[in-house]
Amino acid sequence: MSRRLVVTATVLSLGLGIAVAHETHSKAEQANAYRHGLYGAIAWNFGPLGGMAQGKVPFDKAEAATRAARVAALAEMLPEAFPEGSAIKGQSEAKPAIWEHRAEFDALLKKFIMKTAALSDGAKTADLEKLKTLVSDTRAVCKECHDKFKED
Amino acid sequence: MSRRLVVTATVLSLGLGIAVAHETHSKAEQANAYRHGLYGAIAWNFGPLGGMAQGKVPFDKAEAATRAARVAALAEMLPEAFPEGSAIKGQSEAKPAIWEHRAEFDALLKKFIMKTAALSDGAKTADLEKLKTLVSDTRAVCKECHDKFKED
Repeated sequence: MSRRLVVTATVLSLGLGIAVAHETHSKAEQANAYRHGLYGAIAWNFGPLGGMAQGKVPFDKAEAATRAARVAALAEMLPEAFPEGSAIKGQSEAKPAIWEHRAEFDALLKKFIMKTAALSDGAKTADLEKLKTLVSDTRAVCKECHDKFKED
Repeated sequence: MSRRLVVTATVLSLGLGIAVAHETHSKAEQANAYRHGLYGAIAWNFGPLGGMAQGKVPFDKAEAATRAARVAALAEMLPEAFPEGSAIKGQSEAKPAIWEHRAEFDALLKKFIMKTAALSDGAKTADLEKLKTLVSDTRAVCKECHDKFKED
């Protein structure tokens, strides 16, 4: 879905209620845009955590806690962003395997939600060494899921 | 920014740290994608609240509380999504007025954050009539900001 369609869907949803948006855009298109937005926002907020863990960004405990809380909040929104039939060929990196092995995918999403919750809880009090472990644990789940269920 | 670029930025950010993504995509492009993702996610979650308020979706207190909490969490992420110079002609509905009248825009964003926080707090215990008021209050701020700062 183009940005314009996404924005149009936004306007319709906010202005006229989701029912109208449903008439204009397919559920698959909306879900595809939704999950891309969520993953983009996760990346935006996880980036500084990764930067701190790698020593590329100065460690800032308050910022780490804020970023980690956001990542955890966004992760909880993901499960409903993969409805059946929402793989859009050429527009989505979501592999059909997601729906062919749904239980496995759902388990990885659940693991991601748990790891990001641990990241969020831990970041409130973590020193840099602890943060590195939390970030590494989260990144491992990203990779595990991407390797199986995301197009390169 | 195309979806592919957004996804590429996501992969880069998650896999290699935000520093690499910064080299590949301009800050303006990243910010543009970020705010579109946030507004899309806000619309996704606000939609059912609007639907309940309009009687198009059955009132469900638990779902209303979850959706409202998400909208509030997403709203808090918006302020850093409008860095100076991130209007991209033809790709963004953000009017240049945002940066010409930054204090006014920031005040509206702050108002939106406050209204969505009130929506989130209120939705935990609200009946349908109260939810209608909270939704209406939130929608009014959406409109106030869009009228001034968003292209049609």
